[in-house]
Amino acid sequence: MNREELTEIIVLAKQAKSLTWEAIADDLGVGKVWLTSACLGMNSMPEAPADKLCALLELPPEAKATLMSYPTKTWGWDVPQDPLIYRLYEIVGVYGDTLKEVIQEQFGDGIMSAIDFSMDVDKEENPKGDRVVITMNGKFLPYKSW
Amino acid sequence: MNREELTEIIVLAKQAKSLTWEAIADDLGVGKVWLTSACLGMNSMPEAPADKLCALLELPPEAKATLMSYPTKTWGWDVPQDPLIYRLYEIVGVYGDTLKEVIQEQFGDGIMSAIDFSMDVDKEENPKGDRVVITMNGKFLPYKSW
Amino acid sequence: MNREELTEIIVLAKQAKSLTWEAIADDLGVGKVWLTSACLGMNSMPEAPADKLCALLELPPEAKATLMSYPTKTWGWDVPQDPLIYRLYEIVGVYGDTLKEVIQEQFGDGIMSAIDFSMDVDKEENPKGDRVVITMNGKFLPYKSW
Amino acid sequence: MNREELTEIIVLAKQAKSLTWEAIADDLGVGKVWLTSACLGMNSMPEAPADKLCALLELPPEAKATLMSYPTKTWGWDVPQDPLIYRLYEIVGVYGDTLKEVIQEQFGDGIMSAIDFSMDVDKEENPKGDRVVITMNGKFLPYKSW
Amino acid sequence: MNREELTEIIVLAKQAKSLTWEAIADDLGVGKVWLTSACLGMNSMPEAPADKLCALLELPPEAKATLMSYPTKTWGWDVPQDPLIYRLYEIVGVYGDTLKEVIQEQFGDGIMSAIDFSMDVDKEENPKGDRVVITMNGKFLPYKSW
Amino acid sequence: MNREELTEIIVLAKQAKSLTWEAIADDLGVGKVWLTSACLGMNSMPEAPADKLCALLELPPEAKATLMSYPTKTWGWDVPQDPLIYRLYEIVGVYGDTLKEVIQEQFGDGIMSAIDFSMDVDKEENPKGDRVVITMNGKFLPYKSW
Amino acid sequence: MNREELTEIIVLAKQAKSLTWEAIADDLGVGKVWLTSACLGMNSMPEAPADKLCALLELPPEAKATLMSYPTKTWGWDVPQDPLIYRLYEIVGVYGDTLKEVIQEQFGDGIMSAIDFSMDVDKEENPKGDRVVITMNGKFLPYKSW
Amino acid sequence: MNREELTEIIVLAKQAKSLTWEAIADDLGVGKVWLTSACLGMNSMPEAPADKLCALLELPPEAKATLMSYPTKTWGWDVPQDPLIYRLYEIVGVYGDTLKEVIQEQFGDGIMSAIDFSMDVDKEENPKGDRVVITMNGKFLPYKSW
Amino acid sequence: MNREELTEIIVLAKQAKSLTWEAIADDLGVGKVWLTSACLGMNSMPEAPADKLCALLELPPEAKATLMSYPTKTWGWDVPQDPLIYRLYEIVGVYGDTLKEVIQEQFGDGIMSAIDFSMDVDKEENPKGDRVVITMNGKFLPYKSW
Amino acid sequence: MNREELTEIIVLAKQAKSLTWEAIADDLGVGKVWLTSACLGMNSMPEAPADKLCALLELPPEAKATLMSYPTKTWGWDVPQDPLIYRLYEIVGVYGDTLKEVIQEQFGDGIMSAIDFSMDVDKEENPKGDRVVITMNGKFLPYKSW
Repeated sequence: MNREELTEIIVLAKQAKSLTWEAIADDLGVGKVWLTSACLGMNSMPEAPADKLCALLELPPEAKATLMSYPTKTWGWDVPQDPLIYRLYEIVGVYGDTLKEVIQEQFGDGIMSAIDFSMDVDKEENPKGDRVVITMNGKFLPYKSW
Repeated sequence: MNREELTEIIVLAKQAKSLTWEAIADDLGVGKVWLTSACLGMNSMPEAPADKLCALLELPPEAKATLMSYPTKTWGWDVPQDPLIYRLYEIVGVYGDTLKEVIQEQFGDGIMSAIDFSMDVDKEENPKGDRVVITMNGKFLPYKSW
Repeated sequence: MNREELTEIIVLAKQAKSLTWEAIADDLGVGKVWLTSACLGMNSMPEAPADKLCALLELPPEAKATLMSYPTKTWGWDVPQDPLIYRLYEIVGVYGDTLKEVIQEQFGDGIMSAIDFSMDVDKEENPKGDRVVITMNGKFLPYKSW
Repeated sequence: MNREELTEIIVLAKQAKSLTWEAIADDLGVGKVWLTSACLGMNSMPEAPADKLCALLELPPEAKATLMSYPTKTWGWDVPQDPLIYRLYEIVGVYGDTLKEVIQEQFGDGIMSAIDFSMDVDKEENPKGDRVVITMNGKFLPYKSW
Repeated sequence: MNREELTEIIVLAKQAKSLTWEAIADDLGVGKVWLTSACLGMNSMPEAPADKLCALLELPPEAKATLMSYPTKTWGWDVPQDPLIYRLYEIVGVYGDTLKEVIQEQFGDGIMSAIDFSMDVDKEENPKGDRVVITMNGKFLPYKSW
Repeated sequence: MNREELTEIIVLAKQAKSLTWEAIADDLGVGKVWLTSACLGMNSMPEAPADKLCALLELPPEAKATLMSYPTKTWGWDVPQDPLIYRLYEIVGVYGDTLKEVIQEQFGDGIMSAIDFSMDVDKEENPKGDRVVITMNGKFLPYKSW
Repeated sequence: MNREELTEIIVLAKQAKSLTWEAIADDLGVGKVWLTSACLGMNSMPEAPADKLCALLELPPEAKATLMSYPTKTWGWDVPQDPLIYRLYEIVGVYGDTLKEVIQEQFGDGIMSAIDFSMDVDKEENPKGDRVVITMNGKFLPYKSW
Repeated sequence: MNREELTEIIVLAKQAKSLTWEAIADDLGVGKVWLTSACLGMNSMPEAPADKLCALLELPPEAKATLMSYPTKTWGWDVPQDPLIYRLYEIVGVYGDTLKEVIQEQFGDGIMSAIDFSMDVDKEENPKGDRVVITMNGKFLPYKSW
Repeated sequence: MNREELTEIIVLAKQAKSLTWEAIADDLGVGKVWLTSACLGMNSMPEAPADKLCALLELPPEAKATLMSYPTKTWGWDVPQDPLIYRLYEIVGVYGDTLKEVIQEQFGDGIMSAIDFSMDVDKEENPKGDRVVITMNGKFLPYKSW
Repeated sequence: MNREELTEIIVLAKQAKSLTWEAIADDLGVGKVWLTSACLGMNSMPEAPADKLCALLELPPEAKATLMSYPTKTWGWDVPQDPLIYRLYEIVGVYGDTLKEVIQEQFGDGIMSAIDFSMDVDKEENPKGDRVVITMNGKFLPYKSW
């Protein structure tokens, strides 16, 4: 079973059972962002949550191996078009040099890892309109001479 | 005075006075990410912080009008190459669809604004290697029919 | 039912019933531009108009959920080729900097939202050749310091 | 005098005299969008407004010929990056096929001219936040067989 | 019936009946370039020639509506590769600025319409090798201030 | 003297003497399209017209060698943006396959040369608006087996 | 029968009969490079070799018309990736300006035709490693004024 | 002295002395294609021909080191636009797969080196128009397992 | 059997037999990197290892010819997106000019062959986190004059 | 002093003193690949080697701060053109998926860091032609769920 087929099966099973990503994540004891990315085929799942997910969504037996496989990550665009994703890209464009200055001022020369990394999304209620809060947390990797 | 000239003057004055972006931001009473972005020419500064910045860095008199002007925001790449900025781009690529699912599950159809928006960077100390924490906070804008 | 399948079904049902987008929009009590965009898969429909549309066009039962789902918006080109759409792109190219100057002179630094947004198309009769009148109406979102 | 030099001179003279594009346009008796586009080098000016503009802004004598010359129109991007201009591009992307459907339903096969064309920008005051209203008006050009 | 299917049916029917584009065009009383472009899906056909074409080529009944529909015009490349089409592109590249100078010297600021437009192809016999003569005829559209 | 410098000198001399491309071409006894292309640096000039042009426009002595040199032809875009040139590109896009069908039906497999080639521009007066007539004339080059 | 189907049938028939391109070309009395290009769909075949090829490879009856049709030539890349083809592209990149200088020094302003053109490949045996010898032979086409 | 400066000095000295690339190559005892490529900055020159070239063209003393340096080879385009160079690119496009078939049939899996490589250009006189003959000679490099 | 089909069959057979690339390579007596590349369709296999692989994995009879065929090597991207592959691309970007300097300082003007080439991957155990060691070994090919 | 100026000064000083990158690296006690990359502006130098380099090459006083600054890493291309660098890119293209398979088979899901990374180049003498040996050593970073 390939990743595209599995993603489609998961999305349909989730609809049929009226589950949310958050409810599934809570059930598996993992973060909702990570859970969603693994279901959409962008992360490999360890055996324990894979077992739980297969049981919860009643996935076919070959789903587990696919959930645990190491995905090839591609996203099909250089500049995204969907407005929600484009806004994130715009933030990287507008604030990229700023983040480089601010991070390297605090940490020295290096980068924030996108591998040893986690992310969460919260809702901040606000009478003028609720706000989306995205928190990224990545290990700082310093450059070293050799 | 154009934006490129002003940015160069600010960076040199900051070096000459041994200031950090964080120290300047504290002095002006604004966030360090926003302050840095305004100094790098990606945001316009209101009059009060512009006055303070001109005084603090002893900028030439025409700097104030440039600081307050409305910049044209461009970033010169579709896919960034600097490793620190690329990792942010990769995060948008790998987790873009995931964020769309998670945000729209919580908020309904819409986007997180990149205009009514703020961002901060913190250091999380960790014996295995310190971690960079980036927090984004943007107003949710719902799609409406008309 | 995915968006492409639904769009094809809607277009065929509309032809079979000799309806226009305008007549459908009037029937549903919504704008004809918004109605068309939702039928072409570029906007999600609230439940009330989705119910009416399903009834009017005798759509299959699973159409309603698809109409109400949150679409991923993509358009397949950087530079459009169809002459009608290209002319709109050319207008953005030729008048983009002008609109930035004129809008920001009137409103301050910020943008016109493409989310909190509506649009209409009218015909202006003219003996030298009728004219197309497109009106866009979007909320002004100011940049703020933080 | 080339177009870039002239634009810079005009922008500085306008600042020095504390004029707005709207005030200049009113003084010349032309639309503010068209006036701005001609000053930014995207339209050629007839002799009468060129004379008035030279007098009003005290432009150097060779400015008039440049104002009246036929510009080569280019905009340096396929996908714009400045957020205000990008939103307009996004509207063409999201609503391009919709406009094609709606315009051709009303007018038949053809396009809205971007040459025999005018545009205006207005402010709609609104307690929830003011709104930008852009009105485009272009001649419909029908396709004909031959 | 979509455009691709119709084009394939027309091309096969034309082969089966040993017709040329020129013969079909003469039969319908239209130009051979326009006729070919309409059969290849790049122009919509009025009812009269559509009826004649359906009769002449014995097309299936649903062909007429497709012939009369308003096509979305796309061509799949930025730079064409087929040598015949590339040479035309090269001519636009090499002589584009020249045509701008020559046309605008004769007509003033404006463009040649590609909509209110016709084109023909002729053979000029020549002992050193026959020559292709392409004639384009488009309405001049002047820019106007507003 | 390089091509860019020469073109600028020619354009200024032409303005100073109030000449048109057509008048210069008539004076040299060559076509106005070819003359303009050679002055804009897209064709090399034989000695006789180069001598005449230098005399007519009082060009500096080193201009003749540059006029006679073999230019490297480049045009800086894949998709042109100036509206006049874009319309020509659009015509190649919309009618490219059509021209291939029509030319090869008349001539067999091969191409129209863009080297052994000439072009002219005429004005067709018309009460509904004058029309631009572009005539291209290129040698047909057949493909041969070997 | 389209070109892709025909190429696949030819390649399989050639394998089944253990023929080489060179042997087929010798059998048909044509060059091996041209023969291969016609079989891969990049050249149209005259009737005589098409008949011979159909007999030799026992192709289905509709193959002959496809072999004789005029192909649309496209190659799917701007920069090729296959190492053998890339090396040829690199040669054009590294030596393109050189060839322009050397050819135009010998022939005057003009080009080497890629239509009135032939090519051959030979093996030069060499104890240090055999060498590939590619010979291109194209008509020189001079630019002419008009 | 950088490569661009050196190339300009060489081209001017060559003009001033009315030399051809072929005459210079004969004088130095090297091939005319290689000589031209080294003068245009695409190959490094061994000491002996560099000494001779400096003497012949009376180049400044620092030219020798630049001639002998190892150039970074770049060509500024993906798809060339100059018609002479484009035709070579088109040949790689049209005949690339053919050359792969023909070379690998004769030599096995591998490539023709673009480094251990030479090239020559000859004129073949022909009453119907002279022909350009380009001969490429490159070492065959076989793929090996390991 | 084409390359894509064969790769899929090999990957499934390898899973079914719980083999690793390393175990297969050891069994065939070849390097694990080369073996993997040949199984993924990027290298042709000599007859001996092809026979062994067919036996070991019980591949269908037509697999052997496909394994031995000469593949067309393409990789579908200019800039890779999968994070593991992107890091390798980034290394070429960041260190490309450095490698050119260092290799040419040691070897003279020339390149490292990517054809007469081998590569290996090892694990270096390290308490702070294991390290990947990639070793590339390619023949140096010097540029020569001719 | 910016990076470009510093690199040029270093390269000229190195030439004037007849030093090699290897000799400088040995003098500073660092690797020759890292030393070269820092001199070409792709890595920041710690204070100790920066002091030594300034002394050894007699660099101007402001060089030290530039050597120690954190560079923005960009490389100006998507696909490199210089043949030495292109071969490295081709290796990533041809063997990228292979390396992903082989590394992840040995290490699990994750990547080889390009930050916590070192590289060396050696010469392997060989009577058939010397060989370049490139060794890359990067920390393995595993993906983790969160």
